[in-house]
Amino acid sequence: MAKLKKAPRPKAQTPKGFRDYFGAEVTQRTEMLQAIAGVYHRYGFEALESAAVETVEALGKFLPDVDRPNEGVFAWQEFDEKDNGDWMALRYDLTAPLARVYAQHRNDLPTPYRRFAMGPVWRNEKPGPGRYRQFYQCDADTVGTASMAADAEICAMLSDTLEAVGIARGDYLVRVNNRKVLNGVLEAMGLAEGDGARDNVLRTIDKFDKVGEAGVRQLLTKGRLDASGAYIDGVGLSEEQAEPVIAFLTSKAADAAGTLANLRAAVGDSKVGAEGIAELEQIGALLAAGGYGPDRIEIDPSVVRGLGYYTGPVYEAELTFEILDEKGRKRQFGSVAGGGRYDDLVKRFTGQEVPATGVSIGVDRLLAALREKGRIAADPKGPVVVTVMDKARMADYQAMVAELRNAGIRAEVYLGNPKNFGNQLKYADKRNSPVAVIEGGDEKDKGVVQLKDLILGAKIAENATLEEWKTRPSQFEVPRDQLVARVREILDGQD
Amino acid sequence: MAKLKKAPRPKAQTPKGFRDYFGAEVTQRTEMLQAIAGVYHRYGFEALESAAVETVEALGKFLPDVDRPNEGVFAWQEFDEKDNGDWMALRYDLTAPLARVYAQHRNDLPTPYRRFAMGPVWRNEKPGPGRYRQFYQCDADTVGTASMAADAEICAMLSDTLEAVGIARGDYLVRVNNRKVLNGVLEAMGLAEGDGARDNVLRTIDKFDKVGEAGVRQLLTKGRLDASGAYIDGVGLSEEQAEPVIAFLTSKAADAAGTLANLRAAVGDSKVGAEGIAELEQIGALLAAGGYGPDRIEIDPSVVRGLGYYTGPVYEAELTFEILDEKGRKRQFGSVAGGGRYDDLVKRFTGQEVPATGVSIGVDRLLAALREKGRIAADPKGPVVVTVMDKARMADYQAMVAELRNAGIRAEVYLGNPKNFGNQLKYADKRNSPVAVIEGGDEKDKGVVQLKDLILGAKIAENATLEEWKTRPSQFEVPRDQLVARVREILDGQD
Repeated sequence: MAKLKKAPRPKAQTPKGFRDYFGAEVTQRTEMLQAIAGVYHRYGFEALESAAVETVEALGKFLPDVDRPNEGVFAWQEFDEKDNGDWMALRYDLTAPLARVYAQHRNDLPTPYRRFAMGPVWRNEKPGPGRYRQFYQCDADTVGTASMAADAEICAMLSDTLEAVGIARGDYLVRVNNRKVLNGVLEAMGLAEGDGARDNVLRTIDKFDKVGEAGVRQLLTKGRLDASGAYIDGVGLSEEQAEPVIAFLTSKAADAAGTLANLRAAVGDSKVGAEGIAELEQIGALLAAGGYGPDRIEIDPSVVRGLGYYTGPVYEAELTFEILDEKGRKRQFGSVAGGGRYDDLVKRFTGQEVPATGVSIGVDRLLAALREKGRIAADPKGPVVVTVMDKARMADYQAMVAELRNAGIRAEVYLGNPKNFGNQLKYADKRNSPVAVIEGGDEKDKGVVQLKDLILGAKIAENATLEEWKTRPSQFEVPRDQLVARVREILDGQD
Repeated sequence: MAKLKKAPRPKAQTPKGFRDYFGAEVTQRTEMLQAIAGVYHRYGFEALESAAVETVEALGKFLPDVDRPNEGVFAWQEFDEKDNGDWMALRYDLTAPLARVYAQHRNDLPTPYRRFAMGPVWRNEKPGPGRYRQFYQCDADTVGTASMAADAEICAMLSDTLEAVGIARGDYLVRVNNRKVLNGVLEAMGLAEGDGARDNVLRTIDKFDKVGEAGVRQLLTKGRLDASGAYIDGVGLSEEQAEPVIAFLTSKAADAAGTLANLRAAVGDSKVGAEGIAELEQIGALLAAGGYGPDRIEIDPSVVRGLGYYTGPVYEAELTFEILDEKGRKRQFGSVAGGGRYDDLVKRFTGQEVPATGVSIGVDRLLAALREKGRIAADPKGPVVVTVMDKARMADYQAMVAELRNAGIRAEVYLGNPKNFGNQLKYADKRNSPVAVIEGGDEKDKGVVQLKDLILGAKIAENATLEEWKTRPSQFEVPRDQLVARVREILDGQD
């Protein structure tokens, strides 16, 4: 018989832009999300888990009038005899599915509807370093109420959430602003909605963080010579016209009352501006009543990022401690969550405007912050490893791990080929195991086991003197019936 | 200007075969999965979360040599200028990704590698009632060891897991069998590998649950008249040839030793059969050493489901309590988990055979069982609702919910239009709220609040006498500063 040509072996590779998460990477994220869900639940928010797949029609990202779906989402056409199947896609965020769910189930859902959602979303974008095409989002939104109490509540919840996951008070600040105040400022400047200069002003405001007050002033008027020596054209406003923007950006005072007074001056007699300021006042009063002082939540008109998308209050949680950036320079950790009020959530589906406000937490950034602060271990302890000295006595070793596990101690028996004992210790090392248990024939006869403190052992191997090595042996014999108690002692001593 | 024709509104609908999960449906599943993960972790298993998306090449489900991907998976072609992009697909289980991950990372992973994974998988199948195209799987596998200790460990872990989530001892049984014993039986019958009759015998064995011993005997030999009156052709074996199969299927004795003796007789002098029996013996000894008696795990040769896929031990967890089926007849709840040993996990990728053994828990079935046993509430309590009697005093109400939440009590303030108080109580009802808090102007002046026990209220409304109604009022006044304590009293009383 002729030999069949073998098919080439498939490549064992994650698709481009995707990655695998192992061990603590998974459990630490899960634990953080569970802590967040606990706070959201206490606030009366209900979990919602929609499917990963939506119709493209419902997502509204693109219309399938071309063969090849637009970039941005992963999409495919449902099989259909007549090649006429629906286009489906992986969700790219958790807000578009919320809109669909609310429109679909609105008669069964309570109004207002407080919901939270956490899970992966997918973006069909060019992957880059640290930039993946699947990542987690964690959102909380209140749908169906225009009350500022909903916005205040989300700010309070955000503050509680950060403390619940392990960010200490003083290490974060929730900052609140209002899109309407900015609109008021633009009105005060004589820039009506639709005026092209408006967009230029907004873009300039977005640069405040980088170029500061003087820089913004130059960019709003004649232009500015930047650090590289290039001349950046200005928006072309007069100094007088630019003034309200500057007043707005620098309106933060020592307390909320002072800030609000400054904002009042900045918006002049703009009606929408006054409305925005009244909303900020309400939010401030509600938060004060709940005990959320300016050490946790404050009004800060310089919160401008993403402002364009929102219609009222906007808020952002910033971590205020310093870290070293990749070049070794100190900088603030920065934003880990943001959100605000938006009104067009379900209008696409029903024609009705439904007011909503919500926040999204940057899951990966918050996890990174917790590692930075030492709140979660970068390299957590593995299980106790029971080694196998005698393959025929596997049942003895199995009995040991069962005892340890029943006492709540994470433990495993070595399941590889036990011939080479060095391999077993290498395995324990790879597992980051804190303790190895050894029972050879001699120990069995004497009714004892050897315990090896692997963490102490590693320390001693690194830098102990001979004296220390003798006085604190990292391996010792204990009676077999004290196995659990003595392992626990070692584990407690290691913490 | 001519009016533009409006685009039709998109339909707010989940794609066919997908669904949304709300509130307790989500949190109860999450809690169950966390309890399972806790046991797996204690056993030394490491979490693994691979992406939802794999290359079709790695999944190995179909080759993209046609325009239209095969049914079975959701797949699409990666965009590429030359229309030559990779085909990608959503994972259809958690085993195929494990194979890819192990092959890709095998030099960095410990050997053996114990891993667990939980998450959604997707099947591009025709949806039906209760049959969805996205559902959860929860797997644990040990890769890289042929030791029976790995199989025994997974059986023990499965037993611990069921008890950890709330299935009482006595309400479940983990049953263990071995594919090699069945192969030994086929050998004893003179049916070599590749013999066409072998498949027919396997198919017949699969019917043992339905047709019993006598039925199997008929089907293996001359055939059988079934209940509908139709004649089912037999496999055509002689009575003598059929005997080992019957001996195998009915070999379960009062204890493991008896069962093993019966199996020994059934396989005659087949080498592979003897191997399988020795493996079962080893598993039994290891489990006994760990304290897992036949009230939790037993050897049962009638476990045949899915046997074809496996190469050694197979195991299944069955819930043994009775439920009523849709026609009101009593039946056992049945299987909630199953697994076994398989050897071709990474061979596709590397050419090497890597032995592995693993289990998969039916997440939805186990959740249904817990509801059936009352271990998780079918309709859990909602939050305490603080009603709004005076819109201008929202800060007062906000302070109340903050107090309640800080005391760990789930609470929310009504955020809808407060004008109609009836709507607020309807809202509390829809939220399944246990307590409503009411503070009007009079109460505020007197320094009190009204508490309404909504669960007692509903009971009284249903069937209380006037007497009861008077002696156990469901609404009463308490001092404002006792809000938290008195709400807690009501909640405790309701449990």
